[in-house]
Amino acid sequence: MQWKAKVEVTLKKAVLDPQGAAVEKSLQALGYDGVSQVRVGKYIELNLEADDRKEAAARVEDMSRRLLSNPVIEDYSYVLQEAGL
Amino acid sequence: MQWKAKVEVTLKKAVLDPQGAAVEKSLQALGYDGVSQVRVGKYIELNLEADDRKEAAARVEDMSRRLLSNPVIEDYSYVLQEAGL
Repeated sequence: MQWKAKVEVTLKKAVLDPQGAAVEKSLQALGYDGVSQVRVGKYIELNLEADDRKEAAARVEDMSRRLLSNPVIEDYSYVLQEAGL
Repeated sequence: MQWKAKVEVTLKKAVLDPQGAAVEKSLQALGYDGVSQVRVGKYIELNLEADDRKEAAARVEDMSRRLLSNPVIEDYSYVLQEAGL
């Protein structure tokens, strides 16, 4: 069975995010007042083979921890859906 | 009223994604078979002031088009929620 995973990787709250700060400044320079707490992270989409949702989730969890994120400074979250839906 | 926007920016389907290809190869090298169609994009979180959902959506749309994405090669999508929820 094919699954589609969408993984969001963000810096932990306590970690400084200079890229987010730069985007925030640029938005304000463009005239968007009232924009705050900008954080920039990664977004990863992938398809994978797994027999059921539980196995798919376990594999995505594993991939996120081992390769897609750096667990020391980043958090991740994901959603899973059957591919083709 | 404070809103939280979560914006996902991805390369358009027709645009080559070398970073995604590299991640896919790395995952396969780590033993994750059956992984395919890996695409890497950006994920941006921000808070903004707006009177209602319609105004908030219009501003996020505008920011996504002008700064957060490059509409020539990238697509974006976002979700909006009231901050604090």
